Amino acid sequence: MSAAGTDDCPFCDIVAGLAPASIVYANNQVLAFMDIQPVTSGHCLVIPKNHIPDLEELPDGLGMELFRVAHRLARALGRSHLHCEGVNMFLADGEAAFQEVFHTHLHVFPRFSEDNFRIAADWRIRDRDELDTAAVQLRRGLAALGSG
Amino acid sequence: MSAAGTDDCPFCDIVAGLAPASIVYANNQVLAFMDIQPVTSGHCLVIPKNHIPDLEELPDGLGMELFRVAHRLARALGRSHLHCEGVNMFLADGEAAFQEVFHTHLHVFPRFSEDNFRIAADWRIRDRDELDTAAVQLRRGLAALGSG
Repeated sequence: MSAAGTDDCPFCDIVAGLAPASIVYANNQVLAFMDIQPVTSGHCLVIPKNHIPDLEELPDGLGMELFRVAHRLARALGRSHLHCEGVNMFLADGEAAFQEVFHTHLHVFPRFSEDNFRIAADWRIRDRDELDTAAVQLRRGLAALGSG
Repeated sequence: MSAAGTDDCPFCDIVAGLAPASIVYANNQVLAFMDIQPVTSGHCLVIPKNHIPDLEELPDGLGMELFRVAHRLARALGRSHLHCEGVNMFLADGEAAFQEVFHTHLHVFPRFSEDNFRIAADWRIRDRDELDTAAVQLRRGLAALGSG
């Protein structure tokens, strides 16, 4: 790829046909292909064809198109012969959030009761004051974002 | 709520103003509020105002609006004073996928290097034949979905 910053991007290589991939779907904006290290069989990724490193750089409309295609893939999983009793979508933005390839991608993967996927966190119920304070801070973040 | 199946929905109660919530954002289609059991401070949920139990019932355009708002909230987290070095989005569709409230919701939560969120799976690299076979099955699922 010729654009700056995309020289070492494995997903740009897939878009350009320079690296192998098991393609599921493509249109003029997005590409969907199988994750090579799936959580479960059927785990796929939806990416913008252009090199968009993160959510900050992702145009609103392109994000919506990523989700539209991911949503269709989620529904398609339930109509395939893949083992699918439920579906997760997951997006990691930033290294601290477990992003490993810095070309935005939305994970879609089937789930079933005996699979190996697990999540863990400190899920204590928080009191209303603490939640209200966080909501105020987040609304200030939205205000700082403005219409951009 | 009067629609069938929504009588015991805690999220419909929030939409109707019958249950407390720390609201972050609302428009005519979607509502965003703080998760009472956050992964990290700033963890919020984006839901359709209508009672949509799962991705199968979610109209395409409403899904896109959920993502548009979640994307803005993700960017807002980085502009807030909440601790945010990265962001995850997560959607659980079906009990096997860890859905607990059967009113579709998209999680958005900030991440930082010392937080307690962890994911685990059997992430072996799979061979191309296996991935190609899964891609074929998923494309068949898309075909079965048709234009609906």
